[in-house]
Amino acid sequence: MKAPQIHIVTLGVNDLSRARRFYEALGWKASSTSNENIVFLKGGSGVLALYGRTALAEDALAEDLPNGFSGVTLARNARSKAEVDAWFAEALAAGARAVKPPQEAFWGGYSSYIADPDGHLWEFAFNPYFVFDDHGNLALPD
Amino acid sequence: MKAPQIHIVTLGVNDLSRARRFYEALGWKASSTSNENIVFLKGGSGVLALYGRTALAEDALAEDLPNGFSGVTLARNARSKAEVDAWFAEALAAGARAVKPPQEAFWGGYSSYIADPDGHLWEFAFNPYFVFDDHGNLALPD
Repeated sequence: MKAPQIHIVTLGVNDLSRARRFYEALGWKASSTSNENIVFLKGGSGVLALYGRTALAEDALAEDLPNGFSGVTLARNARSKAEVDAWFAEALAAGARAVKPPQEAFWGGYSSYIADPDGHLWEFAFNPYFVFDDHGNLALPD
Repeated sequence: MKAPQIHIVTLGVNDLSRARRFYEALGWKASSTSNENIVFLKGGSGVLALYGRTALAEDALAEDLPNGFSGVTLARNARSKAEVDAWFAEALAAGARAVKPPQEAFWGGYSSYIADPDGHLWEFAFNPYFVFDDHGNLALPD
């Protein structure tokens, strides 16, 4: 069996232009395959897609209820505490809401959370036990 | 500015053992860094983490409201329609709920959705316009 993996994370958004501006301000690059209905953003090895929340719910045949906590968080791992601080400030400057200011975490690292313009949660964290591979991905032990 | 990327997608789950069994049945491999509170699953270039939903909400300082549609979907891209059918069947056999049976999609591909044991939505899709790189990631044009 071929190894499974996540190829695309799609975020349902209420205002596609606003969401695109936010992520471009953070350094994500829109692929030319993007169109007026969906934006494909390139970053590292993965793809982050932005799509209308109602359309996404319809595509997945899911009921679009308002929600507080989605049960999903996305993490970007830093190489230092200073980098976490910088990413947190950069996100706020781009219009993110501060959820959890950078702080020491019980697991020995340093962590923060922001919410994007649609409430999607991003953790910016430094984990001193994590190692990166040559592609910038996390190299977890088997 | 360094290119941003998603390093980890964390799913909040109600039963960590059940969720781990489900993903292991689909071919994800748990890293030895996993413990009784969190499971780190390796697949392709990314990391999928499983963490108690209540603990995840607390970690993100978010209010844990019940929700219908989380506003987030994860996609695994196949190389053929037959592979989509196979993944869909495999997921159901592992305990997933069928949400959208494999079918032709309006954008020219072939798509299906399942919900994992905690309701997280996965799309298994074949997009004839997408190309993979040597690492199995999507190679979107700039």
